[in-house]
Amino acid sequence: MTERVVLAYSGGLDTSVCIGWIAEETGAEVVAVAVDVGQGGEDLDVIRKRALACGAVEAEVADAKEEFADEYCLPAIKANALYMDRYPLVSALSRPTIVKHLVAAAHKHGASTVAHGCTGKGNDQVRFEAGISSLAPDLKCIAPVRDYAMTRDKAIAFCEEKGLPIATSKKSPYSIDQNVFGRAVETGFLEDIWNAPIEDVYEYTENPATPREADEVVVTFEKGVPVALDGRPVTVLQAIQQLNDRAGAQGVGRIDMVEDRLVGIKSREVYESPGGIALITAHQELENVTVERELARYKRQVEQRWAELVYDGLWFSPLKRALDGFIDEASEHVSGDIRMTLHGGRAVVTGRRSQQSLYDFNLATYDSGDTFDQSMSKGFIELFGMSSKIAAKRDLAQ
Amino acid sequence: MTERVVLAYSGGLDTSVCIGWIAEETGAEVVAVAVDVGQGGEDLDVIRKRALACGAVEAEVADAKEEFADEYCLPAIKANALYMDRYPLVSALSRPTIVKHLVAAAHKHGASTVAHGCTGKGNDQVRFEAGISSLAPDLKCIAPVRDYAMTRDKAIAFCEEKGLPIATSKKSPYSIDQNVFGRAVETGFLEDIWNAPIEDVYEYTENPATPREADEVVVTFEKGVPVALDGRPVTVLQAIQQLNDRAGAQGVGRIDMVEDRLVGIKSREVYESPGGIALITAHQELENVTVERELARYKRQVEQRWAELVYDGLWFSPLKRALDGFIDEASEHVSGDIRMTLHGGRAVVTGRRSQQSLYDFNLATYDSGDTFDQSMSKGFIELFGMSSKIAAKRDLAQ
Amino acid sequence: MTERVVLAYSGGLDTSVCIGWIAEETGAEVVAVAVDVGQGGEDLDVIRKRALACGAVEAEVADAKEEFADEYCLPAIKANALYMDRYPLVSALSRPTIVKHLVAAAHKHGASTVAHGCTGKGNDQVRFEAGISSLAPDLKCIAPVRDYAMTRDKAIAFCEEKGLPIATSKKSPYSIDQNVFGRAVETGFLEDIWNAPIEDVYEYTENPATPREADEVVVTFEKGVPVALDGRPVTVLQAIQQLNDRAGAQGVGRIDMVEDRLVGIKSREVYESPGGIALITAHQELENVTVERELARYKRQVEQRWAELVYDGLWFSPLKRALDGFIDEASEHVSGDIRMTLHGGRAVVTGRRSQQSLYDFNLATYDSGDTFDQSMSKGFIELFGMSSKIAAKRDLAQ
Amino acid sequence: MTERVVLAYSGGLDTSVCIGWIAEETGAEVVAVAVDVGQGGEDLDVIRKRALACGAVEAEVADAKEEFADEYCLPAIKANALYMDRYPLVSALSRPTIVKHLVAAAHKHGASTVAHGCTGKGNDQVRFEAGISSLAPDLKCIAPVRDYAMTRDKAIAFCEEKGLPIATSKKSPYSIDQNVFGRAVETGFLEDIWNAPIEDVYEYTENPATPREADEVVVTFEKGVPVALDGRPVTVLQAIQQLNDRAGAQGVGRIDMVEDRLVGIKSREVYESPGGIALITAHQELENVTVERELARYKRQVEQRWAELVYDGLWFSPLKRALDGFIDEASEHVSGDIRMTLHGGRAVVTGRRSQQSLYDFNLATYDSGDTFDQSMSKGFIELFGMSSKIAAKRDLAQ
Repeated sequence: MTERVVLAYSGGLDTSVCIGWIAEETGAEVVAVAVDVGQGGEDLDVIRKRALACGAVEAEVADAKEEFADEYCLPAIKANALYMDRYPLVSALSRPTIVKHLVAAAHKHGASTVAHGCTGKGNDQVRFEAGISSLAPDLKCIAPVRDYAMTRDKAIAFCEEKGLPIATSKKSPYSIDQNVFGRAVETGFLEDIWNAPIEDVYEYTENPATPREADEVVVTFEKGVPVALDGRPVTVLQAIQQLNDRAGAQGVGRIDMVEDRLVGIKSREVYESPGGIALITAHQELENVTVERELARYKRQVEQRWAELVYDGLWFSPLKRALDGFIDEASEHVSGDIRMTLHGGRAVVTGRRSQQSLYDFNLATYDSGDTFDQSMSKGFIELFGMSSKIAAKRDLAQ
Repeated sequence: MTERVVLAYSGGLDTSVCIGWIAEETGAEVVAVAVDVGQGGEDLDVIRKRALACGAVEAEVADAKEEFADEYCLPAIKANALYMDRYPLVSALSRPTIVKHLVAAAHKHGASTVAHGCTGKGNDQVRFEAGISSLAPDLKCIAPVRDYAMTRDKAIAFCEEKGLPIATSKKSPYSIDQNVFGRAVETGFLEDIWNAPIEDVYEYTENPATPREADEVVVTFEKGVPVALDGRPVTVLQAIQQLNDRAGAQGVGRIDMVEDRLVGIKSREVYESPGGIALITAHQELENVTVERELARYKRQVEQRWAELVYDGLWFSPLKRALDGFIDEASEHVSGDIRMTLHGGRAVVTGRRSQQSLYDFNLATYDSGDTFDQSMSKGFIELFGMSSKIAAKRDLAQ
Repeated sequence: MTERVVLAYSGGLDTSVCIGWIAEETGAEVVAVAVDVGQGGEDLDVIRKRALACGAVEAEVADAKEEFADEYCLPAIKANALYMDRYPLVSALSRPTIVKHLVAAAHKHGASTVAHGCTGKGNDQVRFEAGISSLAPDLKCIAPVRDYAMTRDKAIAFCEEKGLPIATSKKSPYSIDQNVFGRAVETGFLEDIWNAPIEDVYEYTENPATPREADEVVVTFEKGVPVALDGRPVTVLQAIQQLNDRAGAQGVGRIDMVEDRLVGIKSREVYESPGGIALITAHQELENVTVERELARYKRQVEQRWAELVYDGLWFSPLKRALDGFIDEASEHVSGDIRMTLHGGRAVVTGRRSQQSLYDFNLATYDSGDTFDQSMSKGFIELFGMSSKIAAKRDLAQ
Repeated sequence: MTERVVLAYSGGLDTSVCIGWIAEETGAEVVAVAVDVGQGGEDLDVIRKRALACGAVEAEVADAKEEFADEYCLPAIKANALYMDRYPLVSALSRPTIVKHLVAAAHKHGASTVAHGCTGKGNDQVRFEAGISSLAPDLKCIAPVRDYAMTRDKAIAFCEEKGLPIATSKKSPYSIDQNVFGRAVETGFLEDIWNAPIEDVYEYTENPATPREADEVVVTFEKGVPVALDGRPVTVLQAIQQLNDRAGAQGVGRIDMVEDRLVGIKSREVYESPGGIALITAHQELENVTVERELARYKRQVEQRWAELVYDGLWFSPLKRALDGFIDEASEHVSGDIRMTLHGGRAVVTGRRSQQSLYDFNLATYDSGDTFDQSMSKGFIELFGMSSKIAAKRDLAQ
């Protein structure tokens, strides 16, 4: 029986060429798998038929948008996951979603190998391969661009030679990855890190500098999960999509940064994540209101490690599971409403209310009704500062 | 010889009354010390004379603005210090500055005690007293508002009874602390955390929503120190002041949050720190360009602990000194230029350039000239993911 | 109706006097509660009758040894909890156990206050009061020794005056707290930290220097829980008790250290925890075999924070619950056997075997059968060291 | 001009064969460099001559024992560096020492490449290559065993064929790496992790179970540096050597563990480090006495990361330098004497004294002379536990 290779298929030039290229390099049959995580573009059925037309023995397509939102974006929101305090992990979240479908297809079709279209210098190759080896340690991985030197020029030549039904017209100047949680853009002129992005780079967000009316939204969370916008129930997917529209219309969620890749180099990245940034902003402030101080302080460290792990492609790792154990417990009381103004590129919290609030007006107020016993403070300060004071006595004596 | 008490004096009603109040409570002579950390307001000499008029046996005033910027704000910039990822420690930085002057005055005037005007439910009492006990463990601390129940009503009555030369007109609705690094505002209507701030609350920043022309600035750093704006050399103080003006004019640096106080309660705080937020934003991105990945990842944890320590009043603690040892070493190569657009409430980095850059165009580019050896990646991924893969083999077998 | 105070009762002089002392100070009725966490000594019924004889309106006794082992010692074992890398939290674990019983009794008997016999300079007062306020925020706490200046001399005088049925003979030179997980000793001559402990100090352990035959034990764990010794099923309590005997007979588990108390001072402490140290030693090595590297590295930090929190009296805090969420997930595969030699004061692991082992002989061996693909290493090293290498290029160029 | 390769030369079979093997594989001239880090064995001059006899164009030998102790072992002592809380980094410390000499020799002899004798599945290859690329990013690295498949059998055949002056007698059953800081042993029968080590494995330590007289030693530190034993001044090297003898004679410093290698696998390792363990034990307790609590708590995390970094071969990395900045500051007051009993495999601290002590007898004592103000505690506990208490109020209400 012929070996089978499952290919992560996008419908574009590169992965369409991969179908035949892999067949030639390995002698295997290629099963194409396309996963919709909200990247937009063509109809899934069109993509499926193109895969078959390009030589795939089987082609599968899956609408994974709800799954992506519920199982991948939501944990990121609960973790306030911002790699390097900025980047909401857009691509890093979609890869494990896709991996799960690739592995399922490999099992179903008896494939021994999974292939993907990544280059050899990015993070996504790691996310694919580390993910696959954690869900199916016996599957092999290949990356034709990296392993078989399938350059773009060679791909175009292959495409034309074989008469594949794909346009090989001039490439977009932008290298783009997008899904419902956001959009990543790289491009030649941005590789000079002194150059500013131009408006042309952006698609999910309007220009924040354009004068327009502000939008106001109330996001309701239950145990860390966004469940309503302006009082209307939403799924996580809907929350992201609707806030993509509303926050995007106000220019919210643009990120331009120099980033530390897992492969050891620094790269310039431009991102848009209007829904992601709006939801994380709201979620952070609701935690400020509902999470106890020491838990909140420790959770920041957990969040950083969570974001690094997921950025680094270790979604399916034991440490990720244990950090989720912490985060789930910490999210138990993160319920309530956050009101935000969306305007001028910013999502600004203007109000919070929660049945789970730890903000106690009577303890906080400086007006009448204050119940805080200020006489406790002297003893507190004395013992809180005691170890520093004893050290100071020693140090000043010398 | 009569005991002496050094009082942290602001010139306002509360601390003016404290002079006589302390004298009556303790029988001690009161030495008033006013420290200018850029809070604005009256002339220092006016303040000095008022202290004497209110009964102080001595009155000292000090312009500590340069010292505050160089020795307190600068370390905070190098630490990207944002308590709860938001608050640039405005008041928490000024307290140790003032403490240093109080302790020096106590030594000079032979005082046994230091007094301050804080209440018993805030952070500042801890910052004063923990600071004092770390610089002069033998000094006692008193806080008349907390320890002698000196309420505002009683203070006004005392003032009128003694005929002190201070206006006792109706109190401002706002409780304000400000200095060159920023401004903190608390007030009755903001104690309802569902209420949004109104424009009246702000003084250092214009309304971000007002349409206006954007401003562009280039900040130059040397080893983490801001040394020039748009190519013109500046001191740290000038950098803060000029960016207060320029970023403030664009509405940059407003913060509205629920915050965890050291005394265990949550409080609503509104801050403005246009210069602080602009400088930290620029400094963070310059670190993204010039600091190696593992150092950068670890530094985030150090930054969090640094900010918590300083927020908690432990500026003069042994741990703070050791964290500074780390940060100083980490700042060695943080030199270069950051270009930012200031507009609509945001300071947005648009360009970076540095002789110390670790961004390597030839490794990062996807164009010709790429020197990254992609063949290294397969081995990297295999071993990087090995421990997770071995765990997966076990876990999936069960 | 008369107010009621629940008193943590030990049966000894101090808390027996507390019954009447509290009644006189507060006018309240005293309910005595004695909790057996394995401290040994008198029969619970004898203690109960003494409380009544000393004036308690009610007296309750509870055998909490199983509960203490299962709900307090076991989480500490799973956390490898060693405060300052040394102290297995003996007293810090028993306090929350006792607190739970005190709070239940307060609810049952309608008490408004809980009293304990701690001084005002130790950790246990914090553990009692922070624990009580977390389980029953409305209960008040009093500590007669601290709050009513009930010194030992005064207690003896009170005892004799009232004719209480307790011996007031000369106090032991040692201040001791003990339970099934270990024993803590403080004493005058050890307050000189240059003095070594003498054999007289120890009770749970024999002199390690005495020549004797070694003992060998195999401990079996299921998901972090010790379930068998030498193949014979045990409860957690039995595991601790039997290892107290066997490891104690070999002098295992003595600790002599200078320790950082929560109240800010350093103190000299001597501990014995033969069962605790033996179980943690075995558990750590089983984790080395069964826990994936990155999870293991992170868990060390979690363990440190867990131990500090529990030492600091925050057993019932939100952060403790979230850390337990992490640890429970991390313990999922910690199953297998550890063989140890107990001898000369040491518990030394000599063998491990586990169905959950991540040790892969074929990957580890240098003999034939090696399946590790060494060709992967070059690429791994290149990219693993890339960020340091790029930094080195810059740094060396200067 | 012929290319030159600098080879890390041990004098043994493998690296002796490497000289000719590399020459044949690469056509380059080989410069042999042997570095004495206290591994014992043959005279350096004998080794030098053998290298030349085996075909090296140049041979250099260096006594780096003092350098190794002062610049590599000492920072590890100050960091209390124990990988996985056990392993004092014996081999991980010697590699960067050797790397420094290799790089110096490469510069001196105009070599373009450095070669070492490591396999492709251990940590040492990473330590060599990451170290070299951080000191000389332009040098290439080769490892004949890994890169040219130089197996032991082939090496013996090569040796005999070329008539090299080395004995090719049957290999020791043990794979050993040793230096003045300790000794690492791997061997076939220990690859079964249920097997216990036998006495034959050990060389630096006597059997702890053998009855013998205890030894007592006083170690004096200045700012974290061991400067005297029993009052007699020593260099760091002498401190290690003398404690190797004295602690080794008592069986101190044996370690048997399953360890997480950087390349992703777990391996069984047996170590001996009598001097290292004795010095770290003493240093830790002196820190307990002289380092303020919060600094001490944070330093534990720094120590863990330091040990992981060095284990992982990143000695020359930017993060390592910054952590050293922290540790140096933290070591400022770590001066004083520690008395230890060495016996039965244990180094047990029995006394501490220090001019820098933060232990305050008058604060700690329960006897007369107590200066601790217990009335401070009530306020401290109230505010210390406040945030948990407020959370409890909420959580219990539900």
